[in-house]
Amino acid sequence: MRAEPGRSVTSKVLALLDAFSPATPALTLSELARRTGLPLPTAYRRAAELVAWGALERGDDGRYRIGLRLWEVGSLAPRGLGLRELALPVMEDLYEVTHENVQLAVRQDLELVFIERIAGRQAVPVLTRVGGRFALHATGVGLVLLAHAPVEVQEQVLAAPLERYTELTIIDPKRLRSYLAEVRRVGYAVSDRQVTMDALSVAAPIRVPEGVVAAISLVVAHDRADPVALAPLVQAAGRVVSRALSSSTPPRRLM
Amino acid sequence: MRAEPGRSVTSKVLALLDAFSPATPALTLSELARRTGLPLPTAYRRAAELVAWGALERGDDGRYRIGLRLWEVGSLAPRGLGLRELALPVMEDLYEVTHENVQLAVRQDLELVFIERIAGRQAVPVLTRVGGRFALHATGVGLVLLAHAPVEVQEQVLAAPLERYTELTIIDPKRLRSYLAEVRRVGYAVSDRQVTMDALSVAAPIRVPEGVVAAISLVVAHDRADPVALAPLVQAAGRVVSRALSSSTPPRRLM
Repeated sequence: MRAEPGRSVTSKVLALLDAFSPATPALTLSELARRTGLPLPTAYRRAAELVAWGALERGDDGRYRIGLRLWEVGSLAPRGLGLRELALPVMEDLYEVTHENVQLAVRQDLELVFIERIAGRQAVPVLTRVGGRFALHATGVGLVLLAHAPVEVQEQVLAAPLERYTELTIIDPKRLRSYLAEVRRVGYAVSDRQVTMDALSVAAPIRVPEGVVAAISLVVAHDRADPVALAPLVQAAGRVVSRALSSSTPPRRLM
Repeated sequence: MRAEPGRSVTSKVLALLDAFSPATPALTLSELARRTGLPLPTAYRRAAELVAWGALERGDDGRYRIGLRLWEVGSLAPRGLGLRELALPVMEDLYEVTHENVQLAVRQDLELVFIERIAGRQAVPVLTRVGGRFALHATGVGLVLLAHAPVEVQEQVLAAPLERYTELTIIDPKRLRSYLAEVRRVGYAVSDRQVTMDALSVAAPIRVPEGVVAAISLVVAHDRADPVALAPLVQAAGRVVSRALSSSTPPRRLM
């Protein structure tokens, strides 16, 4: 086998998958070629190989989409469906007693990824999407994940410009750093109108012995929110999921 | 670029992912090498490339697992999370009015894949796992998917030996063929103790203009089941999801 110069073969194959995103879930061949920088015939051949394996599916409209086989393999990720399966009963309990939005997220690099959510129908609308990403510095779950992230991660987030979603988003690195210390101290995070002006979220960590691996939150309408009353509820939920994670056999490391 | 002899580069890269399954979600390097037939150094290099992209994650225990990045990309599959997001509110409604198990499945080749399930806590225990596969000829959802599969798929399933899960599983191809015709005629399928002796399921198709793309079911304890009463409920749920699928913009083809 000859290594291709520059990038690895693997990364070239996977670059085709990178072309797909929540904003672009379906791509024509020429879009795929343009986004990957591949010549059209190469893009066609690689895409056909991915279709043959099931990583992509090609519709009647000629567009490529992510295939079910990739979803199946992805469902084996311990930090994806594995975590979700353990957390879902607890999330359902939180929903039953509050009828508010319940969210579950993990950190991936400098962002968070929503693993699951239960959307209350009468609850404040939230824009999160399972599998979607969001910044760490604004939401309740993000603040919990950032507060417990390795120092290098925190420094990278604090060093970059912080997007201001509302006038209440904390974008001053010094204030954010001190709030993260507060989150670690009290054991939960409150994001009060820091993402949208109508919502407040209260989030708590999910831990394994090695550290915090996920966060769980309630997102409620700002005007009917009592964070002090909600916090113990969310923290208890976090503890139940933490215990389920730690006791699952075989023991597994999630981060 | 030089093509590797025999298999495509893409299929060699993806073969590493094939080594993971619900039964083997975590693999050591030597297990990975053995399962892929690769020499240890090659397996190591390819695995490292997959880790760099995020398709795999390596834990403190040295084992490889499917990575969150792959779960993220997989979540873009229209037949996975896309379908699930549209169907979940309807599944929750079915659960609210019955407190029984609700399942959602699609066909992949000659099997079905469970896309979502809501497990009733007081309901009959079911062994399905989101992302898991099962045969088409025994469950309610499987019978619906098989009844509406292309003729070639039906012929392949009927030609192969059919596993007998219980004494009531239909394993005679002629009887199965005639039951599939019945499913198409009445618009729903009943699997009465054909998977386990305590459970009965009633399933209905989810359609787009091009055909049946998924099936939804209730799985209830055999001794308190009234399939004739449950069928209209499940069929109505199937119709609501069908309509949601067909009206989603941009229009998409799911199979």
